[in-house]
Amino acid sequence: MMQAPLLLSSFVKRAERFFPDKLIISRTGDTIHRIPYRDFAKRTRQLAAALTKLGMAKGTKVGSFAWNHHRHLELYFGVPCSGAILHMINIRLSPEHIVYVINHAEDEILLVDHDLFPLIEKLAPQLTTVKHFIIMKDGADLPETSLENVHSYEMLLAGEADDYEFPEDLDENTPAGMCYTSATTGNPKGVVYSHRGLVLHSYALGMNDAMGLSERDVAMSIVPMFHANAWGLPFAAVLFGTTQVLPGPGFAPGMLLDLIEQEKVTLTAGVPTIWLGVLKELEANPRNLESLRMIICGGSASPKGLIRAFEEKYNVPFVTGYGMTETSPLVSLAITTSAMENMTLDERIDKRSKAGLPMPGLEVRIVNEQGEAPWDGETMGELNVRGPWIADEYYKDERTEDAFRDGWLYTGDIAVIEPDGYIKLTDRTKDLIKSGGEWISSVDLENALMTHEAVFEAAVVAIPHEKWLERPLACVVLKEGYVEGPVMKTQLLEYLESQFAKWWVPDDVFFMEEVPKTSVGKFLKAALRKELDHYYQ
Amino acid sequence: MMQAPLLLSSFVKRAERFFPDKLIISRTGDTIHRIPYRDFAKRTRQLAAALTKLGMAKGTKVGSFAWNHHRHLELYFGVPCSGAILHMINIRLSPEHIVYVINHAEDEILLVDHDLFPLIEKLAPQLTTVKHFIIMKDGADLPETSLENVHSYEMLLAGEADDYEFPEDLDENTPAGMCYTSATTGNPKGVVYSHRGLVLHSYALGMNDAMGLSERDVAMSIVPMFHANAWGLPFAAVLFGTTQVLPGPGFAPGMLLDLIEQEKVTLTAGVPTIWLGVLKELEANPRNLESLRMIICGGSASPKGLIRAFEEKYNVPFVTGYGMTETSPLVSLAITTSAMENMTLDERIDKRSKAGLPMPGLEVRIVNEQGEAPWDGETMGELNVRGPWIADEYYKDERTEDAFRDGWLYTGDIAVIEPDGYIKLTDRTKDLIKSGGEWISSVDLENALMTHEAVFEAAVVAIPHEKWLERPLACVVLKEGYVEGPVMKTQLLEYLESQFAKWWVPDDVFFMEEVPKTSVGKFLKAALRKELDHYYQ
Repeated sequence: MMQAPLLLSSFVKRAERFFPDKLIISRTGDTIHRIPYRDFAKRTRQLAAALTKLGMAKGTKVGSFAWNHHRHLELYFGVPCSGAILHMINIRLSPEHIVYVINHAEDEILLVDHDLFPLIEKLAPQLTTVKHFIIMKDGADLPETSLENVHSYEMLLAGEADDYEFPEDLDENTPAGMCYTSATTGNPKGVVYSHRGLVLHSYALGMNDAMGLSERDVAMSIVPMFHANAWGLPFAAVLFGTTQVLPGPGFAPGMLLDLIEQEKVTLTAGVPTIWLGVLKELEANPRNLESLRMIICGGSASPKGLIRAFEEKYNVPFVTGYGMTETSPLVSLAITTSAMENMTLDERIDKRSKAGLPMPGLEVRIVNEQGEAPWDGETMGELNVRGPWIADEYYKDERTEDAFRDGWLYTGDIAVIEPDGYIKLTDRTKDLIKSGGEWISSVDLENALMTHEAVFEAAVVAIPHEKWLERPLACVVLKEGYVEGPVMKTQLLEYLESQFAKWWVPDDVFFMEEVPKTSVGKFLKAALRKELDHYYQ
Repeated sequence: MMQAPLLLSSFVKRAERFFPDKLIISRTGDTIHRIPYRDFAKRTRQLAAALTKLGMAKGTKVGSFAWNHHRHLELYFGVPCSGAILHMINIRLSPEHIVYVINHAEDEILLVDHDLFPLIEKLAPQLTTVKHFIIMKDGADLPETSLENVHSYEMLLAGEADDYEFPEDLDENTPAGMCYTSATTGNPKGVVYSHRGLVLHSYALGMNDAMGLSERDVAMSIVPMFHANAWGLPFAAVLFGTTQVLPGPGFAPGMLLDLIEQEKVTLTAGVPTIWLGVLKELEANPRNLESLRMIICGGSASPKGLIRAFEEKYNVPFVTGYGMTETSPLVSLAITTSAMENMTLDERIDKRSKAGLPMPGLEVRIVNEQGEAPWDGETMGELNVRGPWIADEYYKDERTEDAFRDGWLYTGDIAVIEPDGYIKLTDRTKDLIKSGGEWISSVDLENALMTHEAVFEAAVVAIPHEKWLERPLACVVLKEGYVEGPVMKTQLLEYLESQFAKWWVPDDVFFMEEVPKTSVGKFLKAALRKELDHYYQ
């Protein structure tokens, strides 16, 4: 067989050759651009030529600090197709971490959205490797700035011919992109993506047994392009010539619903928080969702109420996915197999709330202290993943050896796998409760508590125990109108006793005002444990 | 990213882990076997163990001489997953060519269907490399034979444990299979498939913009497993855990329709001759085709009447595909893009009769004497293909240098490419008519002639011409009741004049009784030219 390398440049060539009139619909603030792939390809080539003149060569790190829009998409291809590496910087990192990741990656060119530039300008003195700043905005004018080497994106492109040829002789293992993932403690950890990994991940997204992304779709990536490749959708959409909607800055539910309705979006992807907001807006201002054939929800577990609302009321399949920055990111999707075709709505919603079936091309296993755990839906283990779009290291980082062992990625997620291969996440390794040598899932207990009518939110953590080493403690925020105290405590524990083995039931309930959370709404158990200081004495 | 090789063994592991209860429905003569993937995987491992004991090692060529059934599927995986190479021998080759391909490939073990064994037995004295013959049949008994080293397939399997572990450290470029393709003159030419090529080809078959093969499908491969990997369906079906139907010996339309109806086949693939027979049978004995979501037709151009009948009368999308042994084989499929969604039935049938859109992952171009030809739907050129599942040589064959040049496969097919990227085949290079420096498509003229009410079949060939070098000659077989002669000749030429430029219209019409054909029903123009000897004086 031919040694034809799997390169992202083939996506650009396919889109411009076969789907030149298909659109990238890009919102930049108040303006909505409608850019045919023909022009996208030309601009991507102009961009590659311009960056090359600024010093971009094979292996150069180029940073992006931007929302989801057509210019970011041009970077997604213009940089790696030239052999350089696009570092997609999470704009939500703390200023210290932003400085850390840019310096650690050694970004030489930084492309920044106009509205995000003030932040970068402030940090610029601490950036040790950046030689050029390029501002991305509509129009070629530049803002006032004290920085040197600031360029206008549109001005740079305008100065270049659009026939730049991407090299065809790159090795498919050439790095193409990188993202940093935040760690519980310490600096973010870098993950480097290769052309081969991103191409195969894109193939997988097109499979009927995954998202089935097609030329006939209109795909809207709500998940940010600075977060795990926007789940790979922008790459795959170019391969298939899919119309894509890039919703620009902000995530207002009304704006997202307007785009779905106006552009007849068929497939869209985002985190549960987005969909909770969208649902609320939908209920206040009903819209036409008929065009939607699939909502993909990932980043954390999908609440069943959310799934039910979309599937039952709006008739939109609401599919949970699982992945992480280290996995490009798609590991699994809660798709419907033939064995599930005759399920009741309740059964289907139960399945849909899980992490789902591993993608074709990947392997998974769960491991605990006894070794590889059986797929019985009960035995917990740390989820391990391997395959061609799974990272094998953190970039120049000693934490590599914790996460990547014997050829597998140790995800840090505790899961059970059901006999049919469906993955169900039960915990993060660091939140797992190990009581008398047995594992207790904090997530299962939390989910159960949150179905109690009095409970607004609940987090379960391990506290030290003389005999059992660890025991679960329930931290509960009550809904308004319910009263904290021993009666409620007994009620809640009895409620759990009816559902779990006795040794799973927490020893105590701690009532509190609010569970501390991360910026994306996940429970911040490390902070919670600090508040519970007295239990740890 | 991890260096996870793309290996066929991952398909077996996926099927047995995730879809152990899904079925392979295999017809062997009168018996229909229903084999769950769980058992398929065990038998495949037993087979690998048994063949290893008979001397199969990495790189060993193992030949199969068999119909489409579960044992052949076990060979499809048991041989390559162990690092050896499965040579799928075309049972329709002449005895001389059968001997040639077995000796040329240096097959050491030969697995033969019981009903085909007498042929191999006769040829055995000429087979210089074969050390073992294994007979595939229901039951473990052996036929009487004068040959030594004849084994029973079922007996061999019964003697082995089912926990043979396929090596995980194979290079993905390791050869996995080989097929020979017949040449116009000389011996068949061998094509070697790699694990990487077959894995990527399988991924492509699962894409929504190709066949969209899914776990929820019931796929029936009518195209023989000894012919271009049965278009890759048996491989991809194992990857996706698709129920598959293998229809065994023979191709009786009634039997195929019974299987479609009984097993609720959703997708099936075969050559036009098969579908013409199926259509005839359908019209005599109507069946329920509701389960079918796609018929794939390839091997030669699909007659429009055939497409119309399936699409209009039976409401089954009838999709033409294009490929060849050298291309694993899928190059293109006449899929419906969004631009075609509002087409009339006639327009859609016109599109469906073409070779279609190249698969994601492949590149195509057309070249003629002026270099690369534009995609204008009019300019003809020889179709070139490249990509990771396209061969780069004929196995140990000097004819490699004709077909594989500057990194492309020269297919020998003349095509135009329409502005939307749709490929339309117009000729074979050797049948193209070059008149006064311009190219004339024999296929276009033939298709036009065959729409005339008096014409049963028509072939157009080049005859020498003093001034123009070549001119077209129409060879026509009339339907019963029509009269050959100058009146008919004038009628036919006028009919063509109304549709083509004047210089395309043949100089003469030669009436004949029958157009000589190959065993698969294609016109044999070399033989035709011999009959027309007097034109070549």
